[in-house]
Amino acid sequence: MSATVYLVGAGPGAPDLLTLRAAQLLARADIVFHDALVPQEVLSLASKATKIEVGKRCGRYSTAQAFINKRMADAARKHKVVVRLKGGDPMLFGRAHEEISHLQAKGIAVVVVPGITAALAGAAEMQISLTRRGQSRSVAFVTPRVGEGERANEWVRAALAADTVAIYMGAEEAGAISRELIAAGKPRSTPVAVLENVSLPGATKNFGTLDQLEQLAARVCGGPVLLLLGEVYRASAIISAWQGTPSSSSPTARATPTGRARSSSS
Amino acid sequence: MSATVYLVGAGPGAPDLLTLRAAQLLARADIVFHDALVPQEVLSLASKATKIEVGKRCGRYSTAQAFINKRMADAARKHKVVVRLKGGDPMLFGRAHEEISHLQAKGIAVVVVPGITAALAGAAEMQISLTRRGQSRSVAFVTPRVGEGERANEWVRAALAADTVAIYMGAEEAGAISRELIAAGKPRSTPVAVLENVSLPGATKNFGTLDQLEQLAARVCGGPVLLLLGEVYRASAIISAWQGTPSSSSPTARATPTGRARSSSS
Repeated sequence: MSATVYLVGAGPGAPDLLTLRAAQLLARADIVFHDALVPQEVLSLASKATKIEVGKRCGRYSTAQAFINKRMADAARKHKVVVRLKGGDPMLFGRAHEEISHLQAKGIAVVVVPGITAALAGAAEMQISLTRRGQSRSVAFVTPRVGEGERANEWVRAALAADTVAIYMGAEEAGAISRELIAAGKPRSTPVAVLENVSLPGATKNFGTLDQLEQLAARVCGGPVLLLLGEVYRASAIISAWQGTPSSSSPTARATPTGRARSSSS
Repeated sequence: MSATVYLVGAGPGAPDLLTLRAAQLLARADIVFHDALVPQEVLSLASKATKIEVGKRCGRYSTAQAFINKRMADAARKHKVVVRLKGGDPMLFGRAHEEISHLQAKGIAVVVVPGITAALAGAAEMQISLTRRGQSRSVAFVTPRVGEGERANEWVRAALAADTVAIYMGAEEAGAISRELIAAGKPRSTPVAVLENVSLPGATKNFGTLDQLEQLAARVCGGPVLLLLGEVYRASAIISAWQGTPSSSSPTARATPTGRARSSSS
């Protein structure tokens, strides 16, 4: 049998944030290889499929990716509809390139179905647009997560240059991220938002300033986390500071709309 | 009656690239205010709703936005489910901030439903990931479209700093974009992709180099256009050059994998 492997974006977690195309494919799937973080409610849309978790964990990349590639190619010879279900969107920090290249080299057809990426779902949930006329006209999507042979700080330049920044897979390195950005010239008072479990029942959002990023990220509880930076979060950071969070060290002074962050980062 | 206004992402155009949540809301909608570019097939999902086109055209921004805001607020007093349907995602170059602020100031509840943005749909369609290990770890979403009182070239810095760049609403200014980026130091040989009608039957994609951007963009036929830049498009640009497009002025020489673009922009 010669199958197509569908690389499908599972979106941020809420089952109804899948696309219609993704839901239809899951319903037809014979076998689904899914990331560890895809919730059970999404997997249940693949009612007749065998589900196989192939979630990669940090530090064990190479072996895991080669193993996933091989299993998908094997499955494509046995099944008709093979789905590789990835959290968010496959083409943004989804390592889709390795999987597409491997499958194509084996003569297996590939179709990619996009998904709602966390930054868009988070923006919708907070009701704070990533872009805003006169304030934010560029958005950078970056990750500090380093692969083999990559320089650790390549992402900093892109994060400094954009008005709004979405940092993926950064929660565990929040302290280092904060220090690197501040050392590179990003104002300590840059407003930040830390979102956990975007679109899911246990969703949380915390606002503050860049120098509080480590504290804010320390509050998360093991779910997927998105870090956001930019002037568009200033009003929320100020309200959060008035409410006494995340620390009592006068964050109001840092999160004022007339602070230097406004002029230097927008 | 006190309605909720739903700001809903219509995605790139294909009806099955709407989220399940968006499709369910359209089916329940009493009235839909939609952008000019939302296709008829998507609108038909709102089977019982009055559809009102409120697409803004360039140069008539302020009046149009105030008028849309007022009409939505008025509709919220008369109807139960009011949908504002925006192409792509509402929170990325969707001017959602103005609409949310206006509605909230009027005491009207707002819910935002994310959509598949063109860059993600385009990446899926081309099967070229926006990010790639060891080559592209940052993606900038920018627009050169200028609002009142904004500086025209604010977007250039973000575009220079990121590995992959998605330029929205840039087709008409492709020549100026190319010249500005080259003047700012982006190599002329930077691979580019010009996508029109992403996800729709008339979808086209053209590859080349940054100095050919104006030529490539001149081929589009009035549909929505996305411009993409970055090393991830190099292989496609080389294949395109071998095939003799878009010009005969030896683009192969510019689009070689060992050219200076690789070292300076990734």
